Amino acid sequence: MTVQHIEGGITAPKGFSAAGVKSGIKKDKLDLAIVYSELPARAAMAYTQNKARAAPIEIMMRDHPSELRAFVINSGNANALTGLKGMADAEAMREVAALALKLKPIEVGVASTGVIGRFLPMGVVNAGILQASRELQRGTEADVVVAKAIMTTDTKMKSCAVQTTLKDGTLVTVAGMAKGSGMISPAMRTLHATTLSFVTTDAVLKADPNPRWQQVMDASFNVINVDGDQSTNDISALLANGAAGGAPADDDPAFWEAVTTIAKSLAKAVAIDGEGATKLIEVIVTGAKDDNEARIAARSIVASNLVKAAVFGADPNFGRILAALGNSGADFDISKVRLVLENGKSVVLFENGSPSFAPESTEEGVARAVLHEKRIVVRLELGVGKGTGEAWGCDLSYDYVRINASYTT
Amino acid sequence: MTVQHIEGGITAPKGFSAAGVKSGIKKDKLDLAIVYSELPARAAMAYTQNKARAAPIEIMMRDHPSELRAFVINSGNANALTGLKGMADAEAMREVAALALKLKPIEVGVASTGVIGRFLPMGVVNAGILQASRELQRGTEADVVVAKAIMTTDTKMKSCAVQTTLKDGTLVTVAGMAKGSGMISPAMRTLHATTLSFVTTDAVLKADPNPRWQQVMDASFNVINVDGDQSTNDISALLANGAAGGAPADDDPAFWEAVTTIAKSLAKAVAIDGEGATKLIEVIVTGAKDDNEARIAARSIVASNLVKAAVFGADPNFGRILAALGNSGADFDISKVRLVLENGKSVVLFENGSPSFAPESTEEGVARAVLHEKRIVVRLELGVGKGTGEAWGCDLSYDYVRINASYTT
Repeated sequence: MTVQHIEGGITAPKGFSAAGVKSGIKKDKLDLAIVYSELPARAAMAYTQNKARAAPIEIMMRDHPSELRAFVINSGNANALTGLKGMADAEAMREVAALALKLKPIEVGVASTGVIGRFLPMGVVNAGILQASRELQRGTEADVVVAKAIMTTDTKMKSCAVQTTLKDGTLVTVAGMAKGSGMISPAMRTLHATTLSFVTTDAVLKADPNPRWQQVMDASFNVINVDGDQSTNDISALLANGAAGGAPADDDPAFWEAVTTIAKSLAKAVAIDGEGATKLIEVIVTGAKDDNEARIAARSIVASNLVKAAVFGADPNFGRILAALGNSGADFDISKVRLVLENGKSVVLFENGSPSFAPESTEEGVARAVLHEKRIVVRLELGVGKGTGEAWGCDLSYDYVRINASYTT
Repeated sequence: MTVQHIEGGITAPKGFSAAGVKSGIKKDKLDLAIVYSELPARAAMAYTQNKARAAPIEIMMRDHPSELRAFVINSGNANALTGLKGMADAEAMREVAALALKLKPIEVGVASTGVIGRFLPMGVVNAGILQASRELQRGTEADVVVAKAIMTTDTKMKSCAVQTTLKDGTLVTVAGMAKGSGMISPAMRTLHATTLSFVTTDAVLKADPNPRWQQVMDASFNVINVDGDQSTNDISALLANGAAGGAPADDDPAFWEAVTTIAKSLAKAVAIDGEGATKLIEVIVTGAKDDNEARIAARSIVASNLVKAAVFGADPNFGRILAALGNSGADFDISKVRLVLENGKSVVLFENGSPSFAPESTEEGVARAVLHEKRIVVRLELGVGKGTGEAWGCDLSYDYVRINASYTT
């Protein structure tokens, strides 16, 4: 049940190919991607819960296909809040891709990301789809262009692949790519997801993978928060085309561990690449009334602008962490609350109902040193139960403001 | 039923005096305040709903006095998350003030604001209380020093006064002061309040003013949001000492209009003085399923970092406003949603399910011009009912990050 990281990305599993092109939605940047499977792939899908859903999300939620052969994705324009014309444009993207790939429209998934409230330039989009469908290939180059073609304000491409051996000895590959930097606060539900992410695998799946996909989402993308703004366009898709052969992987723990590894890796990559982010914050809550309250508490902390700004400034202002806990609604016993900062070094900030050290003490120096690291772990024991939960986020920097003060201009 | 703005602040109503001193909690700045009433004042009180409550809030919620003679308030230290020693310190502040003013401790309210998780320097605090109790006076000078003594990161003092004539001809004065810049997301409940605010009046009240005070809170402080972080220390107090004489004002609309005018004025002053704020954002939602959903939608928009950063950058990225609406959970009919920006000029951003104008159009220029104003009104019709609600906030600037990246240092 070991999961091995390997080179490569979305086309690492057998039977998948991909392409990314510069269609012209953006000025001279990759902006249109196709992921293609030679065999029908069993699909699981999670969508944003934002009620202002983009046109491609409306279409995917309406059809919620259980099998897919391809996904067509554009960046630079979200096709969100674009009314009936937006719906027609999303349908057209699917139809043009189906035509070019000799598939039925229902066999093609569609997703968009970028500026909200603008109509897609369908002339260049259609030409881009035709070009991408001709350029489908396998291998590292394709993995890179396709992962770049779905990026918006991302500074880094997010792509990874793993292999694991199933109980029956079959070697299966699971790979993924994701985009996401701002408007990140996913609360994805299968059939109701933030950020775009695509996971491919050559494992055989027979049963409906959506319930397991929800569990994977809850342990990965639904744990991250960049700015508390859940997107209009989030979608997270699993495509399993069975090209590896062997026994079905539906109940094989090794398979789901591999999928979860990919999803967690992509989700953390999104959090650390949050707009303007300089640090990854991981909050681990224990001792909550239940797992749900633990997650709510962790999320409230990682979402607090005051906590995020303090981490950016390496200011050990732990009161803000506990204030965010207090706001979360989660139950806690302040006399049993224990707050620890970790990164190699570890320092207790609060326990037994009181601060653990005085201003300008040695311990405060250690806390400050931890906060200067690139990855900060906040451990918080609530003292009222056995619930545990995590949330991952990033700090709030000047660059977040800069990036978002002039996004459309 | 006209409410007249007058010069002056917290001591403008008859029978109130005040003082503010530099006790030494802060370095050479006003940090300790007393408000005193010659007569017993009927009290209404609203407190933060954050579960991590500061020691003075714990004490006030426990005793929830119906009558008060004085309030002792310090800034520079929140006395929050300070355990049993913090409780003892808050009790001591009240006892020392009572001793100095010849009152019972239960007749004195106590409040703190500032850094969380540090113990109060009780030596200087006690000396400051004694000094302030000797320096109580009425008039503009006292109004200014006391309002300054409760400030933390506030850049402006928040103080105002009005007069109105009751049905029986009695002229009553209502005045207030407030502090608050960061950690502002109040959701105050009487007997469960953000920001410190104190409203004094010489009107006679006979009935319990708490239910009416809740209504005033819901129309004023509970409408504002600077950063979504509800404080550990919020308290909002009304003190009515009856010194104006005349008939009880309990059911006099003119009186409550005057109180609401003061509370709204203070709340807007807090919003526009939000940490790093350059602009006031007022969101007015109409056509919601009910008033509660309208308030939730308005608050979700004014709390969105993406909306706030776009307003800072004067970027007419209206999709973020509708994305925030979608996240709020409030019901809407996208085909009937109408989004308008106003400030003298008015421009429709979205209606009939689609954006109202193309990028780089004349209308976009007007939208950009509106967003360059200091006060921006966002009007949003949801098209599903008759509910209305408002929220007031501010933009997200580089200075918000600067201020909060080094608050304790």
